[in-house]
Amino acid sequence: MEDKEIEGWDYRAKPSSLSRRFEFSSYAQTRDFLDRLDQLSQQTGLYPHSTNFGTGYVNLTIDLDVDAEAYQAFAVQVGQLYRA
Amino acid sequence: MEDKEIEGWDYRAKPSSLSRRFEFSSYAQTRDFLDRLDQLSQQTGLYPHSTNFGTGYVNLTIDLDVDAEAYQAFAVQVGQLYRA
Repeated sequence: MEDKEIEGWDYRAKPSSLSRRFEFSSYAQTRDFLDRLDQLSQQTGLYPHSTNFGTGYVNLTIDLDVDAEAYQAFAVQVGQLYRA
Repeated sequence: MEDKEIEGWDYRAKPSSLSRRFEFSSYAQTRDFLDRLDQLSQQTGLYPHSTNFGTGYVNLTIDLDVDAEAYQAFAVQVGQLYRA
């Protein structure tokens, strides 16, 4: 496992980024996750590079090119939102 | 212009869908658009097939395979949210 890898996330080296698919059984659950992700971003000032969602899934890509440690910690927190 | 085309949107025939990129000068504006889009979806019961966003843009794909007329009207309303 490389330094920049985070359990549960797919690590890609070029560009250095983490990606993950989160699945939900309803739009209400998807929306709840997106709302909590938004709150986390506003608290931390860190945002996914891209967020792609439909009614039952959210795909996130988090860029690690700048301030990798902060964004790795952010990825861990996002994973915790999913379990919560 | 084919029947299913809507001004401002890119129409693709297979699968039958509309797509469009909306750009914003701040995350606050992006978020405001996403919130109003969510309200519109909850009012109409119609949702984009996929929503892809970063801090300054939103890319939408709207599926026309089922109930094309309703989703065309939805696309027009989404365009109006952007101007509002």
